[in-house]
Amino acid sequence: MGTSEAVLQILCGAGPRLFYSNPCFSKSNSRCAFEFHFKCSRRRASSCSQFLKRSSMLQYGVRGIGSGFLRNAKIDPSCLQHCKCQRDESVGGITSEDGVGTWFVDNAKKLNPINGMVNASNILEFQELKQENEVMTFNGTNGALGDTTFHKVSIDSIEDEAWELLRESMVYYCGSPIGTIAAKDPTSSNTLNYDQVFIRDFIPSGIAFLLKGEYEIVRNFILHTLQLQSWEKTMDCHSPGQGLMPASFKVRTVPLDGDDYATEEVLDPDFGEAAIGRVAPVDSGLWWIILLRAYGKCSGDLSVQERVDVQTGIKMILKLCIADGFDMFPTLLVTDGSCMIDRRMGIHGHPLEIQALFYSALLCAREMLAPEDGSADLLRALNNRLVALSFHIREYYWIDSKKLNEIYRYKTEEYSYDAVNKFNIYPDQISPWLVEWIPNKGGYLIGNLQPAHMDFRFFSLGNLWSVVSSLATADQSHAILDLIEAKWVDLVADMPFKICYPALEGREWQIITGSDPKNT
Amino acid sequence: MGTSEAVLQILCGAGPRLFYSNPCFSKSNSRCAFEFHFKCSRRRASSCSQFLKRSSMLQYGVRGIGSGFLRNAKIDPSCLQHCKCQRDESVGGITSEDGVGTWFVDNAKKLNPINGMVNASNILEFQELKQENEVMTFNGTNGALGDTTFHKVSIDSIEDEAWELLRESMVYYCGSPIGTIAAKDPTSSNTLNYDQVFIRDFIPSGIAFLLKGEYEIVRNFILHTLQLQSWEKTMDCHSPGQGLMPASFKVRTVPLDGDDYATEEVLDPDFGEAAIGRVAPVDSGLWWIILLRAYGKCSGDLSVQERVDVQTGIKMILKLCIADGFDMFPTLLVTDGSCMIDRRMGIHGHPLEIQALFYSALLCAREMLAPEDGSADLLRALNNRLVALSFHIREYYWIDSKKLNEIYRYKTEEYSYDAVNKFNIYPDQISPWLVEWIPNKGGYLIGNLQPAHMDFRFFSLGNLWSVVSSLATADQSHAILDLIEAKWVDLVADMPFKICYPALEGREWQIITGSDPKNT
Repeated sequence: MGTSEAVLQILCGAGPRLFYSNPCFSKSNSRCAFEFHFKCSRRRASSCSQFLKRSSMLQYGVRGIGSGFLRNAKIDPSCLQHCKCQRDESVGGITSEDGVGTWFVDNAKKLNPINGMVNASNILEFQELKQENEVMTFNGTNGALGDTTFHKVSIDSIEDEAWELLRESMVYYCGSPIGTIAAKDPTSSNTLNYDQVFIRDFIPSGIAFLLKGEYEIVRNFILHTLQLQSWEKTMDCHSPGQGLMPASFKVRTVPLDGDDYATEEVLDPDFGEAAIGRVAPVDSGLWWIILLRAYGKCSGDLSVQERVDVQTGIKMILKLCIADGFDMFPTLLVTDGSCMIDRRMGIHGHPLEIQALFYSALLCAREMLAPEDGSADLLRALNNRLVALSFHIREYYWIDSKKLNEIYRYKTEEYSYDAVNKFNIYPDQISPWLVEWIPNKGGYLIGNLQPAHMDFRFFSLGNLWSVVSSLATADQSHAILDLIEAKWVDLVADMPFKICYPALEGREWQIITGSDPKNT
Repeated sequence: MGTSEAVLQILCGAGPRLFYSNPCFSKSNSRCAFEFHFKCSRRRASSCSQFLKRSSMLQYGVRGIGSGFLRNAKIDPSCLQHCKCQRDESVGGITSEDGVGTWFVDNAKKLNPINGMVNASNILEFQELKQENEVMTFNGTNGALGDTTFHKVSIDSIEDEAWELLRESMVYYCGSPIGTIAAKDPTSSNTLNYDQVFIRDFIPSGIAFLLKGEYEIVRNFILHTLQLQSWEKTMDCHSPGQGLMPASFKVRTVPLDGDDYATEEVLDPDFGEAAIGRVAPVDSGLWWIILLRAYGKCSGDLSVQERVDVQTGIKMILKLCIADGFDMFPTLLVTDGSCMIDRRMGIHGHPLEIQALFYSALLCAREMLAPEDGSADLLRALNNRLVALSFHIREYYWIDSKKLNEIYRYKTEEYSYDAVNKFNIYPDQISPWLVEWIPNKGGYLIGNLQPAHMDFRFFSLGNLWSVVSSLATADQSHAILDLIEAKWVDLVADMPFKICYPALEGREWQIITGSDPKNT
């Protein structure tokens, strides 16, 4: 099986069933194991000002521990596929070989287009600066792909190097691997929080490990972050919902209370209360559900998703997402920076990426939720939301040349149930670049939709995840890939894949990003 | 008692106790009355496309009804106070007379500053175009007020004219008054939805009626909108939470089913599913709670707020507001257009006005909620939110010359629990006008705060409501009034009070409002 197919299958539901079980995390003794290992410190500050200097921590005694986790996990070679790709100077010269599919990835640092399994956290996760040591694959369209040229390279050496770098980025907790750090840049002395394990950044690493048959790190990651979910988290006396997953966590070694010579390792989560901009990570829980299902699909080990605490974790995330709200829309309302990169990009409101992850997580959760008496209402709400959400995105987020012409003719200020211009979009807000840019064949889902606001920018992850998760219809999925093909030079250019096209500039950049120099 | 004092007292908690009770709405028979009067039509469309053409309606049989409501309510003259104000050409020449306080209001249409009880829906509600026929009062600061001049005018004639216009705008339902229409512009043939009763637009009318001792219309309004709250509301298969109050409603006369000659009146609510821009009215429920308390305080009739259905209504609104969410902030997250005017103003996220109403509504609800076994958790959550919310607004929304200098010196990209620049504000985003504008004495609460985003515009209602509700500290309240005094020419100019200062222009207007020609 080609790696591309494997990626799609574990995300979409037809992966291999490789069973791997670590007794430490078996269903029966899991609660016991965590009760034994975790020593929780629930320090509550007594005033608002004190909260700002507090960090909540999960404490874990190191002494005498380490036997419960395997350092080196089993590797199932059937999950690893070597790809040999063809460099072709001519336009559209990339072909599929040996049924493996075609890989197209640029190497951002070397400005040298290469194929295969490479440093592609930039592709699926789009964390340009954070994650340079991870390995992931990206399945593009097969066939002609524009005028970019590719070199035939030795997959083995690049893949080996990539794996070496990925392993260097692994983080251990009491001797067991539990994630990979966000970035490891030897040229920078200021690590900020990039030395932490970010939930969203681990996803491409996690999928790479799953495809390589290294399930332990993914399982540890899933179960440890689950423990962090229910942790007490507070900023200035206010606590978000218990279901919130952290944005990131760090393993710290601290002196053990009451013992001058001993130390212990603690997990120190960040839910946004220390993060730059104080952004709550809405996407973390959605990614977690998606990875949980991928783990079960790939490893065949369904015992993790069947655990009572895991089932509870899924429900807590869903509860936050589908709770009654003010909104007339089925889309999730979030602040800017709640996904992708935790800084302002002008995607406050109902950004496409969050909606695609939300849809995907709802589908995954529906498949994993154990049938029981109390879950009927939840499943009903979940099914209703799936229908409403897919209708909303497919209908209102879609743009192509035909829709663009409709928007140009929109009447405004329509008050009625059957208004055509439901969101009161003034045609003047159609971005000048869009008219030139939109191809005759193809289309895409816009970046954001709010009352009187369409963000016409093309966001890569949101569109690709809509294809992967079937949030886009089959026709729309083809049209998105047609557009990527037609706009290859704009979207890929000299980096693996642009997060967003076009980049904001000048006054627009000042107003929309708040003059953030990192968002250019 | 001066009208200004009366307004503050019924909003802040020390109003007169004038008892007025209509047996139709007494506590004991209220459920029965509604069960008798309302005939609900719960039509569910079977597909998404059908939903768009449906309007949910509350149906009410007209035949044989009309005895339960009084058309003309009692008027208690003690609530009405004539104010005689002094026009003074000199700077700061406005003085308080007879302990009544000083009234300052411009007449937007005549460009002629007048004092007293005038057409001031524009002031408290800031609905410039909608509500020209209502009467309300506005209590400014006492003492010197800058260089604007005022004429002494005859209150009686203006007040009489205002009351005449207000009465013309009253809407009747089965013979009883239940509200006032949003706008009545004889020069415009396109009424859009301005012929409806808007919840937010009725508030200043309602307070005027309360001050005049006309309690019936307010009580009817409160109880009828409560019935609409639990109405089934859907847009494209998605339903917001049951606690959502409608933005507006209309009384329609329709043929009675099964009878060719009879008609019935129906209440047709709009929750945003037909509104321009499809905006959900987050502020409606908050205003409703505030008006409910004002009704009890002013009329002395506590039977309405003690009713079981009213208590349930309060709890349903609170449930929507204080439900667990992703946010790290205690402020309410909303889309643009969810308050003030239902169109895009660039106040998505955590706009000040919603937070001030939220704080005010929480205070009112805490006072009105009946103590019972099940309400302890709710009260605890409510108290926690009040503390966190007031801390957050007072600390992070406040701007004055000192704070502005701090922001100029902000370091960015701080990752830590004790970061000074918690929201990662880039000093470059400080608006150029602000530096010149901010006075040495005085300050205000900024319009919105998001990750990496401070909206430095001055929003009048949010600031004034923060003063009225004590969301601002005593020092901050004084500083806000100092700033209004210092910037009188900018904020009042030739209209009663600007919604927002400064107005958006040029490229900024295009980007932030989506080129909305009504937002200039």
